[in-house]
Amino acid sequence: MEFSAQQIADFLNGEVVGNKNIKVNNFSKIEEGKHGTLTFLANPKYTHYIYETKADIVLVNRSFKPEHNVEATMIKVDDAYQAISQLFMLVEKFKPQKVGISAKSDIAASTTLGDDVFVGAFVTIGENCTIGNNVKIYPNTQIGDNVSIGEGSIIYANVSIYQHCVLGKNNIIHSGAVIGADGFGFAPDEQGHYSKIPQIGNVVLGDDVEIGANSTIDRATMGSTIVADGTKIDNLVQIAHNVEVGTHTAIAAQTGIAGSTKVGKRCVFGGQVGITGHATIADGTILGAQTGVSGSIKEPNKVWIGSPMLPVDTFRRSSVIIRKLPELAQKINTIERELQTLKDSNTIPSLK
Amino acid sequence: MEFSAQQIADFLNGEVVGNKNIKVNNFSKIEEGKHGTLTFLANPKYTHYIYETKADIVLVNRSFKPEHNVEATMIKVDDAYQAISQLFMLVEKFKPQKVGISAKSDIAASTTLGDDVFVGAFVTIGENCTIGNNVKIYPNTQIGDNVSIGEGSIIYANVSIYQHCVLGKNNIIHSGAVIGADGFGFAPDEQGHYSKIPQIGNVVLGDDVEIGANSTIDRATMGSTIVADGTKIDNLVQIAHNVEVGTHTAIAAQTGIAGSTKVGKRCVFGGQVGITGHATIADGTILGAQTGVSGSIKEPNKVWIGSPMLPVDTFRRSSVIIRKLPELAQKINTIERELQTLKDSNTIPSLK
Amino acid sequence: MEFSAQQIADFLNGEVVGNKNIKVNNFSKIEEGKHGTLTFLANPKYTHYIYETKADIVLVNRSFKPEHNVEATMIKVDDAYQAISQLFMLVEKFKPQKVGISAKSDIAASTTLGDDVFVGAFVTIGENCTIGNNVKIYPNTQIGDNVSIGEGSIIYANVSIYQHCVLGKNNIIHSGAVIGADGFGFAPDEQGHYSKIPQIGNVVLGDDVEIGANSTIDRATMGSTIVADGTKIDNLVQIAHNVEVGTHTAIAAQTGIAGSTKVGKRCVFGGQVGITGHATIADGTILGAQTGVSGSIKEPNKVWIGSPMLPVDTFRRSSVIIRKLPELAQKINTIERELQTLKDSNTIPSLK
Repeated sequence: MEFSAQQIADFLNGEVVGNKNIKVNNFSKIEEGKHGTLTFLANPKYTHYIYETKADIVLVNRSFKPEHNVEATMIKVDDAYQAISQLFMLVEKFKPQKVGISAKSDIAASTTLGDDVFVGAFVTIGENCTIGNNVKIYPNTQIGDNVSIGEGSIIYANVSIYQHCVLGKNNIIHSGAVIGADGFGFAPDEQGHYSKIPQIGNVVLGDDVEIGANSTIDRATMGSTIVADGTKIDNLVQIAHNVEVGTHTAIAAQTGIAGSTKVGKRCVFGGQVGITGHATIADGTILGAQTGVSGSIKEPNKVWIGSPMLPVDTFRRSSVIIRKLPELAQKINTIERELQTLKDSNTIPSLK
Repeated sequence: MEFSAQQIADFLNGEVVGNKNIKVNNFSKIEEGKHGTLTFLANPKYTHYIYETKADIVLVNRSFKPEHNVEATMIKVDDAYQAISQLFMLVEKFKPQKVGISAKSDIAASTTLGDDVFVGAFVTIGENCTIGNNVKIYPNTQIGDNVSIGEGSIIYANVSIYQHCVLGKNNIIHSGAVIGADGFGFAPDEQGHYSKIPQIGNVVLGDDVEIGANSTIDRATMGSTIVADGTKIDNLVQIAHNVEVGTHTAIAAQTGIAGSTKVGKRCVFGGQVGITGHATIADGTILGAQTGVSGSIKEPNKVWIGSPMLPVDTFRRSSVIIRKLPELAQKINTIERELQTLKDSNTIPSLK
Repeated sequence: MEFSAQQIADFLNGEVVGNKNIKVNNFSKIEEGKHGTLTFLANPKYTHYIYETKADIVLVNRSFKPEHNVEATMIKVDDAYQAISQLFMLVEKFKPQKVGISAKSDIAASTTLGDDVFVGAFVTIGENCTIGNNVKIYPNTQIGDNVSIGEGSIIYANVSIYQHCVLGKNNIIHSGAVIGADGFGFAPDEQGHYSKIPQIGNVVLGDDVEIGANSTIDRATMGSTIVADGTKIDNLVQIAHNVEVGTHTAIAAQTGIAGSTKVGKRCVFGGQVGITGHATIADGTILGAQTGVSGSIKEPNKVWIGSPMLPVDTFRRSSVIIRKLPELAQKINTIERELQTLKDSNTIPSLK
């Protein structure tokens, strides 16, 4: 499908500067712009590319003032990044939608499917599940007994959802994610042999939750492991049993949160963060990548980094010095020697 | 199903304090207790909840002496935590058990299935496998050729087990785990191009082993990667080729153990630990979360933490000082200046 | 199948020292050598085992000079490690090859399959895919629409490949890997609620790429996430959207690379490394395990380690001192006190 600069500007409430009739049928990055494509300029670092891009249309912020000639047609919008995202969403909407129930799936008779549900080949859905309207379940996914999935959710391929878990509306669960496996709970006897503590709770995901590929959210020992509305979890993340994550929190890849920890609202965690069990993390906490959190964080909206974690300023100052520790140690040795010399020279006079 | 306080006390060899006939049909956490449920008090931190819980029955230790009025009926037992675990196990036992071989599975004719095996839909089992009595294999799991699975083991959905691997009795393998993928072995040529070293070994799991969701246990280059009896491995853990893990060791989530390392018995590793290859880790070693182990640990039963690792006491003392490094560096500068002043003032007299 | 020492020596261009007719039918490790097997000696640390191994044949380097009697027949070759790898490859070649298209798979009519393709049971392949000659797709794998897989590639069980991804020739993708899930891209509004930025790009893997079990390679926001020819990626690795990894790079388990970072050629990363987004990593960079990279690395062929990373020499020297920080801090306090004493004693004379 092709669209003209004018059609796109109309959709985005933007203003065309250049050829209103030029048409594009695809997107490109500004540094790799090609004829027939639309690109955007949002990050000022990339400004120099606009003078040489081969893309035919560039979305720019209304505030953008070119310093040289721009060959491409520009569409001025309030926020170029948001505008390109709007166009991406439009494209997604027009993609052919998966529909229908594959004859090659295996769905228990006691399960209820809503309207316009898609179930791919080799999907298994257990007993007494409730699958909401417009839910899409991609091939090879397994859903255990008594699971409930809210309307509009997308479950990609090869996902495993254990019995009794509850997913909200408009969730997106990426391939390989495991929702509701047993929490890691064992009681050691006197010889140090472990006996398993059955994990009889479940997982509850709120609305608008996204879970990344191959992430694992363990079921609670008792009660629920909870990920609240609007929270986004990246790939390969571990959420242990009885953890509760608040609303609108973002957790980057390979982070792990140990059992029973409560994470607040609007937190942002970088990749490979580790948080100990039974801790409470205040709302708005920001953790840099690889941060190690060994206890509760009580003050909201603070930035921490390092393992063990430090306030970000302290961490930066300490890191600079860690690099210079060998010099510092040497300096101390020199000082010690000189001090001794001084003491020696001073001692003699004092003996006089 | 409902049970009375007396019935539960009889099962647990406990003693009822309160209404022997009160009945419950579910569990709750003490801080979220509801009518009709049973809860427990094991952690002294939670003691204050017992005076306000709405649960009808609370399991308590025999030693518990209430300081205020307790509304709920109490059942006194030797160990409240173990008692609740016993009840959980009872509940698990009464859950309907999966049985039968799905007509939608794909099992090679040369494979032998024991008695009372469950095989779910879309499970594939290759040639010449031996599946023990009472094994349960959940939907969408793939088992390669020549695999052997000991009796009573549970393999959850979407697990992949490569050819020639051997699982012991009463194993639990959670969804998405991969047992027996190729070890990461490549030989670089003069240009730095890698050629693959075929991995012709296998993986051998002992009895009573549990492997968490999406964990990966690689096959040996030659011989076997081994996880011994009673060892419990959490989610997203990486066990590389030719690693050997001893008996009754517990390994928390996102830990990685590099090739050919031998881990002892009764070790406990926190989350996100990394252990280098070709090392030997002594029996009873305890590693804090995010520990980095770059060589062998010879002394048994020691606690280490940090990356690079330190004995736990040293780590704590050093961590306190790392936080103060900027002050420390400043102090040294001050000392240096003052020392210079002193030397200058001292030098003049010495010239006399 | 059995082979004589002479037959093996002929195949490897080696020279038999001992019984030319002795036959073996399996491999063993030198420290666990058994009658009827062949082993090898490459690592000098293992030399003492050659005098006691029960293996019947040992591959040794031509330069090897025994200091005691060797019971086993030796085959002298240019490079014993490479020779054993050659034998492993021979064994692999003779293993029965999977062939044919399972009647229990689900392949869209619009998809093209090359010659001699293997498709296992419960595999789904979407619309308009191109599957090259000799490709093998193991059971329970899901391949989305418009995917292309180059000839000779092996896709193991339970892999998920999202729509529009492109795999080169002779790739090996291990079980549970997820290729092309959405990048982690969200735009927060004023209340900190996230709206999803559609990820309309794809993943492109070059030729001879290997991806480990349960690793995740996210699709680009726009354009492609790229892993170039000959690059080998271990298990549980995260490659974020729009990352580009150069040729012949090796990335060990549990490493994570954040969005839009460009990694050079011939890099080697240890396990659990974390690299920030939008960085450039120079060719030939070597990163020790658990390294944290918070910006670009411009100088090629350097070795870094630590979090935050340091040149390896600095890291080692600093690490030694970190261990001694408590002593160092004490020393500084002592110096400070003594300096004060000196100043006091000096001040008085100066008052004179």
